[in-house]
Amino acid sequence: MNLTGKQLIGNTLSQIGSHSFTGFNPATGEPLSTVFYEATSKEIDQAVQLADVAFSICRKKRGPEKALFLETIAEELLALDTELIETVCLETALPAARIVGERGRTIGQLRLFATMLREGKWNNEIIDPAQPDRQPIPKPELRQLQIPIGPVAVFGASNFPLAFSVAGGDTVSALAAGCPVIFKAHPAHPGTCELVGNAILKAAEKTSMPNGVFSMVQGVSHEVGMQLVQHPLIRAVGFTGSYRGGKALFDLAVRRLEPIPVYAEMGSTNPVFFLPRALKANAAALAQAFANSVTLGSGQFCTNPGLFVVLKSEESFVNQVAENLNKISVGAMLTSGIQKAFSDGITRLKTQSEITCRTHSSDNLTPVLLTMTAVHAISDPTVTEEVFGPSTVGILANDKTEVLDFAQSLKGHLTATIHGTAEDIEAYKDLIDILTLKVGRLVFNSFPTGVEVSPAMMHGGPFPATTDARSTSVGTTAIYRFTRPICFQDLPVSLQDEKW
Amino acid sequence: MNLTGKQLIGNTLSQIGSHSFTGFNPATGEPLSTVFYEATSKEIDQAVQLADVAFSICRKKRGPEKALFLETIAEELLALDTELIETVCLETALPAARIVGERGRTIGQLRLFATMLREGKWNNEIIDPAQPDRQPIPKPELRQLQIPIGPVAVFGASNFPLAFSVAGGDTVSALAAGCPVIFKAHPAHPGTCELVGNAILKAAEKTSMPNGVFSMVQGVSHEVGMQLVQHPLIRAVGFTGSYRGGKALFDLAVRRLEPIPVYAEMGSTNPVFFLPRALKANAAALAQAFANSVTLGSGQFCTNPGLFVVLKSEESFVNQVAENLNKISVGAMLTSGIQKAFSDGITRLKTQSEITCRTHSSDNLTPVLLTMTAVHAISDPTVTEEVFGPSTVGILANDKTEVLDFAQSLKGHLTATIHGTAEDIEAYKDLIDILTLKVGRLVFNSFPTGVEVSPAMMHGGPFPATTDARSTSVGTTAIYRFTRPICFQDLPVSLQDEKW
Repeated sequence: MNLTGKQLIGNTLSQIGSHSFTGFNPATGEPLSTVFYEATSKEIDQAVQLADVAFSICRKKRGPEKALFLETIAEELLALDTELIETVCLETALPAARIVGERGRTIGQLRLFATMLREGKWNNEIIDPAQPDRQPIPKPELRQLQIPIGPVAVFGASNFPLAFSVAGGDTVSALAAGCPVIFKAHPAHPGTCELVGNAILKAAEKTSMPNGVFSMVQGVSHEVGMQLVQHPLIRAVGFTGSYRGGKALFDLAVRRLEPIPVYAEMGSTNPVFFLPRALKANAAALAQAFANSVTLGSGQFCTNPGLFVVLKSEESFVNQVAENLNKISVGAMLTSGIQKAFSDGITRLKTQSEITCRTHSSDNLTPVLLTMTAVHAISDPTVTEEVFGPSTVGILANDKTEVLDFAQSLKGHLTATIHGTAEDIEAYKDLIDILTLKVGRLVFNSFPTGVEVSPAMMHGGPFPATTDARSTSVGTTAIYRFTRPICFQDLPVSLQDEKW
Repeated sequence: MNLTGKQLIGNTLSQIGSHSFTGFNPATGEPLSTVFYEATSKEIDQAVQLADVAFSICRKKRGPEKALFLETIAEELLALDTELIETVCLETALPAARIVGERGRTIGQLRLFATMLREGKWNNEIIDPAQPDRQPIPKPELRQLQIPIGPVAVFGASNFPLAFSVAGGDTVSALAAGCPVIFKAHPAHPGTCELVGNAILKAAEKTSMPNGVFSMVQGVSHEVGMQLVQHPLIRAVGFTGSYRGGKALFDLAVRRLEPIPVYAEMGSTNPVFFLPRALKANAAALAQAFANSVTLGSGQFCTNPGLFVVLKSEESFVNQVAENLNKISVGAMLTSGIQKAFSDGITRLKTQSEITCRTHSSDNLTPVLLTMTAVHAISDPTVTEEVFGPSTVGILANDKTEVLDFAQSLKGHLTATIHGTAEDIEAYKDLIDILTLKVGRLVFNSFPTGVEVSPAMMHGGPFPATTDARSTSVGTTAIYRFTRPICFQDLPVSLQDEKW
């Protein structure tokens, strides 16, 4: 397939503007050949208007129809075959095996939502039967159910160019709900976006979804996304990326004439607590598994464990982690911007006298382990802010009280992890109580970097991990970000089989 | 019981400030005798700090413990007996029978939530079983459930001094979730607030809930509420009242360093559509029932039908409604401010040449019926904005297209109502589709002014009816405003019976 670099306004290619940009090969730093065009405000408006018209049709589609749409997207993604894999690898420098795996995850996600739609219970219908004889007044019949809210703007992430991008979790949950999607293509993988966007449009056509159920606008400037979020017909926003980006979109959305919800997953440092008896029993294996988790995908995971906590006496464990990290070579980072932010972030920390670097950082692509005392970390929350990449910060606590104090000082995170034996768990119940209020997912005796796509998954968490702690961006309950309840009072029998 | 006029900081009476105010008897306009003191920032901070400490205890209370607390509040309300009824009547000018009824609703609501807590399924637990043999990697066990979020600030409404005030729906759902409440007493019924606040504190003590699970601050200025919403330990806000009040709190909350959700129910005009065949069959009865609904509680209901739509040819129905309204005498309004806003709002409309007054409005307390064309109403949305009180605006449409156009021009409302026969419903399916996207509850062949407290109720709706269309402030699902999901991955067996 030849990439066009144009906007996908429903099934029409559009190129009005003349501002252009290209993707880059992060492995070489070289620009790629396709020229992409920045969407204009007119194109953005066209896409949203078309989505609003499409909404009147796709909100009425029944579960099996929407399921077929999602399943067909999965097939179209598979049909792109090596072209897709090669394009992603070129634009992201991620290894092919990883991308094949991520494609599997993306397809599994589409199929999981399709299964939920076919089961037909996701809309959470609650029926209160009528009581015509109730005194002093009869009780009407009430039925509450979830309905889709309208066109949704979705912003994908650079670190998962398939699973959290064009056909990723946000798009899938919006389409499953019955909401059209306008996707803001990610400038770090614009070609991948165009390929996947076309796959979605093909699937829409094959399954008779209305034109406008999906559109995609390209852009490297912030203007495109800002205009999209402020368009009066946009009803919600899904976002995965940086705190700065997500918070900026949130601030725009709540200042609209009609505020709309923003579901921004902005990442976190995902603290891991290694408790004493677990380390006594298993230090070597934990040090190896932890080093692997820190460097997975060059450390570019939302759930990367960028922070861990041990008692100061566990010096040998910290050394083991450092040694393991020294032996791991990580691949190129996703963009030169991410690379620069990583090395700047590490430099900023390393130059502080209270912080010790435990790894040999010969160049910018070496995994990094820094340590500091719990007292210092509590006194200066900026030192434990996320440095996106293959690094982790060890917090050394003098005793259990300091462990608890540090936990109490944490802001919201996507995850926290506890490694502990049954005895540790008993002794650190307070820690579990504290962490429960700080995170979206609490992991025991494992690592946070695997995020299952399943009904019980919660990939979210208190601010600043996300802008909406009530929601998840992974797993089937992610659909409820794009629905709202309605109640029908004494719905006529003739309408009881209607699709709302 | 002697009213003290002081703040209830947990179970301690406090009076630091010297700014004072009194309640008023709206029937006479005379000030009442008790002097109430405006809470100071120090008192607000004390209440919230105490709530935060209490939260660590009450979040751990099990369903039956919290149920007993709610049931005991109900008993304590009943024990206040005639003192409560008389105080409410004095402060609101609402008739005793109505207040007795509202007390019944409030008690019923407390007991309904208690029943839900005893059933123990409200926290929506989802368990994905582990699959240790899954390839290529084992699947962990995941359990998602809803947990309480922390101290909640609640602002009650003047129009339901019991059911939407101190022990009303917001307080009950927050306490049921396990969240402490700091209630901002309503200056229109401060004595009622103190009585009910004390009843809650008594119940808390009797059922061993921690000190600080409930506090109440008095205040007639906006400062008290603004400080409360901006306190960093407050995690959510419940509000029932005006658009101006609710939107102001929303704007403060989203601009906090850590934004928090605001559930503001800000009312709406609740359009009623009278379709042709329903009127043909039943005009007289509908005209009477509608006039009753418009004037219920002196028109001071959030679901008051302030707007109705008929074809222009239904002149005789409009006249019948006007005649019925002319015969109804309404009681004094809740406050002089509400009275003034009502008469100003009506005057503003009546002086417009496109608007016709159909009722004899001899004085300020007469129900009012105004009419205008659909074309005019569409061209100027301000003429159909809520005028809180016993008035309704009739929209006269030339044909079905104008009915649909007017419906399409509506913003978000709590409810819309359709009166139609089976044939009408068939002919106006488009109308139903449009209204479904505009409202929280769609009522068929009844009136919106009865709001059942039950699991399927949805008392909310798209902006500007509320600041959060995903939520309801009435019915048991109101609890989810004050919870969020958490996921435990491989939760140790020893913790599986824990209360989170």
